[in-house]
Amino acid sequence: MIVLCTDFGLEGPYTGQVKAVLARAAPGVPVVDLFADLQPFCPQSAAYLVAAYSTLFVPGDVILTVVDPGVGGARAALALQADGRWYVGPDNGVFELVLRRAKSARCWRIDWRPEALSATFHGRDLFAPVAALLARSEAAPGKEAPATRYPKWPDDLAEIVYVDRYGNAITGMRAAVLPDGAALEVAGTRIARARTFGDVPPGGLLWYANANGLAEIAANGASAAATLGLAPGSPVAVHGPG
Amino acid sequence: MIVLCTDFGLEGPYTGQVKAVLARAAPGVPVVDLFADLQPFCPQSAAYLVAAYSTLFVPGDVILTVVDPGVGGARAALALQADGRWYVGPDNGVFELVLRRAKSARCWRIDWRPEALSATFHGRDLFAPVAALLARSEAAPGKEAPATRYPKWPDDLAEIVYVDRYGNAITGMRAAVLPDGAALEVAGTRIARARTFGDVPPGGLLWYANANGLAEIAANGASAAATLGLAPGSPVAVHGPG
Amino acid sequence: MIVLCTDFGLEGPYTGQVKAVLARAAPGVPVVDLFADLQPFCPQSAAYLVAAYSTLFVPGDVILTVVDPGVGGARAALALQADGRWYVGPDNGVFELVLRRAKSARCWRIDWRPEALSATFHGRDLFAPVAALLARSEAAPGKEAPATRYPKWPDDLAEIVYVDRYGNAITGMRAAVLPDGAALEVAGTRIARARTFGDVPPGGLLWYANANGLAEIAANGASAAATLGLAPGSPVAVHGPG
Repeated sequence: MIVLCTDFGLEGPYTGQVKAVLARAAPGVPVVDLFADLQPFCPQSAAYLVAAYSTLFVPGDVILTVVDPGVGGARAALALQADGRWYVGPDNGVFELVLRRAKSARCWRIDWRPEALSATFHGRDLFAPVAALLARSEAAPGKEAPATRYPKWPDDLAEIVYVDRYGNAITGMRAAVLPDGAALEVAGTRIARARTFGDVPPGGLLWYANANGLAEIAANGASAAATLGLAPGSPVAVHGPG
Repeated sequence: MIVLCTDFGLEGPYTGQVKAVLARAAPGVPVVDLFADLQPFCPQSAAYLVAAYSTLFVPGDVILTVVDPGVGGARAALALQADGRWYVGPDNGVFELVLRRAKSARCWRIDWRPEALSATFHGRDLFAPVAALLARSEAAPGKEAPATRYPKWPDDLAEIVYVDRYGNAITGMRAAVLPDGAALEVAGTRIARARTFGDVPPGGLLWYANANGLAEIAANGASAAATLGLAPGSPVAVHGPG
Repeated sequence: MIVLCTDFGLEGPYTGQVKAVLARAAPGVPVVDLFADLQPFCPQSAAYLVAAYSTLFVPGDVILTVVDPGVGGARAALALQADGRWYVGPDNGVFELVLRRAKSARCWRIDWRPEALSATFHGRDLFAPVAALLARSEAAPGKEAPATRYPKWPDDLAEIVYVDRYGNAITGMRAAVLPDGAALEVAGTRIARARTFGDVPPGGLLWYANANGLAEIAANGASAAATLGLAPGSPVAVHGPG
């Protein structure tokens, strides 16, 4: 399975061209859109989402991750194997949290180049062909070499990293690392933990461990993002119990 | 074929995770996105759309329908067989009109539970695995039991239930039940019936029987929703001829 | 491969119904969404995009192109073979630039009609079945006859024809026809050519030959469309060097 995590959008011409390349180079391999609307120009927020959401996938699956504002410049192209899963994308931090949390990881610098390489769409021209190669169980086309690391990025990011179409606001923090009974504060509002939406009154706010393990802020039957004015980048504070 | 009718959106992480589950559990079965943008928190408007749009599909097809504000609470999970088609989703009214219009229907309460069941994403953890099972022609994993019924909901809903990207506004009324020569009134404007867009002058309003049998309000080459200020929930009045 | 270029959107009910028809009539043929958000009601802007973006595809591929404000009226339905690729869609100019640039082209007027033809959704009822037929290597179901031509449309359109989710603004002009050192002027701002985003300072504007050969206006790490107030239809002026 090839899993797409990008900021390309689905309705315009980018994801379709990537899928056309994959359909020709890895026929019969299922391709799944995990994220097509990652925050443009922001590898950091992508890093926390990719680390949390890719654990759903299994060894041999290929997670093609492209948030790539430096496309066509000096940044390298990477293929990683982390806990058996493949990751392909730019060397700009999108894999920082995958690497930090992996029990085992290896990294290759992709030195293969296609005959025609556009300056602005390596997703189609470089990363998709490499993803197809790895999905067909071939070797990474390059030399083993370390990824650039981002040691100042925290293990868990106390920010909103994604707002979904319900207006639920996903943070970059794993729920499991937050203290029992912790409250989250966003936009001046302190919010208690619950298990699911219906555990609070209609319109009430809650935070909960989402289905991929991240702490997420929502309202019951309403948009938390609209109620509180949240967007990617909004800061989140953690308050211990008591 | 498995048909998805949800409020999950396509670009964010929900539909992709459902498709990953389906690709593993029902490999080779085509999966089609029929609606990914049903009105969040509103099983009733979904009920009229699912009843009208699922008739395109054939016996054996599985319509996975998830608008589920009560996820993780007490509501049951259902599998229905109606006129040969399978429907899977929450017991919250989303199938009320399917059941009311079906010539033959049976209903099962799903009592199977996965090893890991999140509190907020039964689309991925519960409904998708059951849809895959039914698509593989296996039996519904539960006991036959009636769905909760919503007798106060009308047979046809005199409201806008969906606005598409042209700004066409779909009502919850079947065109075939409206009297010959009827006009529809929305936002204080009375609109006559036509066959297609070009039957009225540029910018002119019309209502017509849409390609799935519902009465729909549009403008020729323009957005009826923007012109009239329509949104899901806007009331519609029917005026007989004369 | 069947490639979809439409204004249907992906999240609502139109593209899904087209794909359901294709999955039944051409099982196993990959279907790719190239554009689902072409400008509604505007065959002309579609014409420049389809000509530029369909060259990625190969002989035998079928490009299903539906921007069809005249659906259900007098306009004919076409199947074209241009440089080996198939194109299916309405006879309203969407193929004007494909025809003008093709080294070899033949055109058929589709006279086949399905048993049930809706007045407003020929994408599902007429064009999709014909696309499936051509993808299965069958003959075009109609007589060879010329397309309606649009001789007043320029070879390259000095307008914005599409704005993507980064806020990049694609013009209808091929970069290769612009003079060396040309600058583009939009919204009163003169913009110089660069190779990729990082070649200008953060927030700076550039134009470049995009990955499909069109001249495109962007900002480094920001939205050119928001910065400059660009939308489809915004005029573009070309200034020679010096």
